[in-house]
Amino acid sequence: MILAEVAGNLNAVGYGIATIGPGIGVAFVAGKTVEAMARQPEMAGQLRTTMILGIAFTEALALLGLVAGFLFS
Amino acid sequence: MILAEVAGNLNAVGYGIATIGPGIGVAFVAGKTVEAMARQPEMAGQLRTTMILGIAFTEALALLGLVAGFLFS
Amino acid sequence: MILAEVAGNLNAVGYGIATIGPGIGVAFVAGKTVEAMARQPEMAGQLRTTMILGIAFTEALALLGLVAGFLFS
Amino acid sequence: MILAEVAGNLNAVGYGIATIGPGIGVAFVAGKTVEAMARQPEMAGQLRTTMILGIAFTEALALLGLVAGFLFS
Amino acid sequence: MILAEVAGNLNAVGYGIATIGPGIGVAFVAGKTVEAMARQPEMAGQLRTTMILGIAFTEALALLGLVAGFLFS
Repeated sequence: MILAEVAGNLNAVGYGIATIGPGIGVAFVAGKTVEAMARQPEMAGQLRTTMILGIAFTEALALLGLVAGFLFS
Repeated sequence: MILAEVAGNLNAVGYGIATIGPGIGVAFVAGKTVEAMARQPEMAGQLRTTMILGIAFTEALALLGLVAGFLFS
Repeated sequence: MILAEVAGNLNAVGYGIATIGPGIGVAFVAGKTVEAMARQPEMAGQLRTTMILGIAFTEALALLGLVAGFLFS
Repeated sequence: MILAEVAGNLNAVGYGIATIGPGIGVAFVAGKTVEAMARQPEMAGQLRTTMILGIAFTEALALLGLVAGFLFS
Repeated sequence: MILAEVAGNLNAVGYGIATIGPGIGVAFVAGKTVEAMARQPEMAGQLRTTMILGIAFTEALALLGLVAGFLFS
């Protein structure tokens, strides 16, 4: 019998989990924007602006996951 | 060989998990309301009222996750 | 160095996991039924019956999760 | 202070996880087939054949999860 | 009382988790491409090219999960 030889840092797991939601979310925003552009091509500019806004808030959550790793080290 | 040096409180993990469902759920309600408003603009008032109702029940589940952390400490 | 002071019962975690699927599933059935009723209002009775049937099978899986906690204690 | 008294086999957890994807997948195939049949009733035979094909490949992944439990015991 | 007799390598778990997203993602791309082809059959060539492009980027993430197992061993 050997004791478990598990190495690694849970903070890396934490960042990994922190990217699940935003990873799907940013892609959802971009995908829906592409869909909306194809329906209303003349609105493309406004749609892209709104997409960037939505992505900014979503992306921030994942980037904070990287900061949290240092914060709770 | 060093023993695992994992620190932290499982209650924080519990609250984190408790926000997965409501986090998606509240956004789903708001997103579908925006979609419904665009289809029936004259119903906007009623749609917003129903949205607030749906969000209230959904949000409560996540907030109880914070309470549960103290309850089971 | 202190050893981990984690308390609690994995059976509670098991029941928590057992409600993920049925929780989404029952809501999916009810949501789709509401959608279907709005499309075919004269079918409302049959749709509600089918919904109850679908919910019964889905709900049972989560309730068995509570039983499993005692079964595998 | 008592040491953790956790009993059970991780292989059961493995099989449980192995059924998440196929469980949703098989239901997705069947659900979409029902939807497709309602749109093109005269294609019902071919749709059911394709559904069985899709379910076979999906179901196999979950059943292998049961085998994996013995394989890696 | 026996101590836990858990064997296995967390890198295998890591690869397993790494395939969740790409596994759904590649299937989503292929599924949407089939849907798009049925709507615009004359675009089939271009749609397949775009699908391969999307799959390539998605698949790479899962394959890197296999590499990561050796990288962090």
